[in-house]
Amino acid sequence: MANETNLRVEDAASKEVKPNDRRITASFQGERGAFSEDAARNLVGPTVQTIACRTFEEMFEAVSSGKADCAVAPIENSLAGSVHKNYDLLEEHDLTIVGETKVKIVHNLIALPGVTLSEVKRVYSHPVALAQCERFIRSNPGIAFEEAYDTAGSVKMIVENNRRGEAAIAGASAAGFYGGQILAEAIEDNPKNFTRFLLLARPNEAGQLGALAGEGVRKTSIIFRVGNQPGALFRALAVFALRDIDLCKIESRPIEGRPWEYSFYIDLTGDQTEPAIERALGHLAEMAESVRVLGSYVRSEE
Amino acid sequence: MANETNLRVEDAASKEVKPNDRRITASFQGERGAFSEDAARNLVGPTVQTIACRTFEEMFEAVSSGKADCAVAPIENSLAGSVHKNYDLLEEHDLTIVGETKVKIVHNLIALPGVTLSEVKRVYSHPVALAQCERFIRSNPGIAFEEAYDTAGSVKMIVENNRRGEAAIAGASAAGFYGGQILAEAIEDNPKNFTRFLLLARPNEAGQLGALAGEGVRKTSIIFRVGNQPGALFRALAVFALRDIDLCKIESRPIEGRPWEYSFYIDLTGDQTEPAIERALGHLAEMAESVRVLGSYVRSEE
Repeated sequence: MANETNLRVEDAASKEVKPNDRRITASFQGERGAFSEDAARNLVGPTVQTIACRTFEEMFEAVSSGKADCAVAPIENSLAGSVHKNYDLLEEHDLTIVGETKVKIVHNLIALPGVTLSEVKRVYSHPVALAQCERFIRSNPGIAFEEAYDTAGSVKMIVENNRRGEAAIAGASAAGFYGGQILAEAIEDNPKNFTRFLLLARPNEAGQLGALAGEGVRKTSIIFRVGNQPGALFRALAVFALRDIDLCKIESRPIEGRPWEYSFYIDLTGDQTEPAIERALGHLAEMAESVRVLGSYVRSEE
Repeated sequence: MANETNLRVEDAASKEVKPNDRRITASFQGERGAFSEDAARNLVGPTVQTIACRTFEEMFEAVSSGKADCAVAPIENSLAGSVHKNYDLLEEHDLTIVGETKVKIVHNLIALPGVTLSEVKRVYSHPVALAQCERFIRSNPGIAFEEAYDTAGSVKMIVENNRRGEAAIAGASAAGFYGGQILAEAIEDNPKNFTRFLLLARPNEAGQLGALAGEGVRKTSIIFRVGNQPGALFRALAVFALRDIDLCKIESRPIEGRPWEYSFYIDLTGDQTEPAIERALGHLAEMAESVRVLGSYVRSEE
């Protein structure tokens, strides 16, 4: 693989940064200390330099514009389902998926150091995190729970403003990053709570960043549209089934301006360069309105 | 069809209510004047008595508990996609889909009577409505746009509190209901903006409420789970494709406690009592872990 840029890929996990090399930058949505930052360290290594973005659009834009080398985008939570906004942004932007990781989501109640649970009257967090801690919320009727735009951002706000009567629900990394104290650990209702993140890069740097994941079973993600005829989706899936290609995920999203028509996203096992998959994609292109390969990358085994 | 209850079904569209009859009650999410209430009138008729619920859970619970005869649930917007929360609630509750309707979503800027656009400094609406009016928002940089939990509820708040410097984005029905004035009409970015709503009833009253829709092409909605083997979804879809049964929609949702496994929701053309569909559902049951028919009902042709 050609070393097209000066990204320091081979030893991204090492702590020393050579003067001529620069650290890999990764955009993510949320505040520093977010679960996405844990994912960025999994995917790029501990020396990753993260760029906090307020919205998913800004996160994608940071890579498209060259401000960041890559983006770390949550795509699916094992309880809440797909992050549909990011599927839409994958279609809008010309980025390549070069890796994936799964992060176990553990929610904690985090307050200022020295604060006790009985002092806490108000708790902030992201609506999805609040929805995943219903049992804790019901067993603390004296506390008001309020929606905020970010989990880690809620910890930041409480610590920076020295708010003693308040707390936040967020990951342990947020407590560590802002100097908050964990008052109650693992308060989520369901311990089988994972979020899958994608690593996204500009197409010309996909090989370099993809190499960070090393060797392993590969996956390929595609997006396609078929005409609105009976059996169209079945015939599209047949190109994979007839070749024993395993599908791991299928997702549909509406097409703007064409009510009740859909784009389909599929994750399949294997690399786009394997002959069977190459032929299946060619076969799909014969019958589909459009097919786009979003990337081939090493499957996360956690 | 047996007349099991005293619901006044046959002449629901008539204005006179006979003393022994009671009007059909329909729960919906949001405040009075919401798009869901327009859908309730389409589905049940102008005499429908609507019950406003703060959450989708309360809306389902109102029917399950017998407080309401039926619920009117948004299931899909042609731009934003599926309302995934309501797919999950369909699985959790034992209700039957008895009808559907499509409502054209037209967003308006609504203020107190006599207020002019130049007086408006702050505008409230539901996040989805705000996202669908980006052009209007960008062309009014002097106005602060803020998220609220409901479109119609924002109109209510402004009118009831006599707030002259504020406005809301909501449907025309909300202006009519609360006595607000439309300052700018149809400010949505994309005119092809429709929401599809389902009418849900308790299974023992499904026939009566389903009859409200009259005659027409019928649809059937099902939910099923297949094992996590290669080709499982393809084989499930084959039971319909091999019998030329048209699928209109497919949606997947995560299964709680089984990360990266999914339930599938399918809408197909035809009634569950048609021989081909009966046989296809029997065939699906042979290979699926579970199959549940959510209902057969008249397709909305708008």
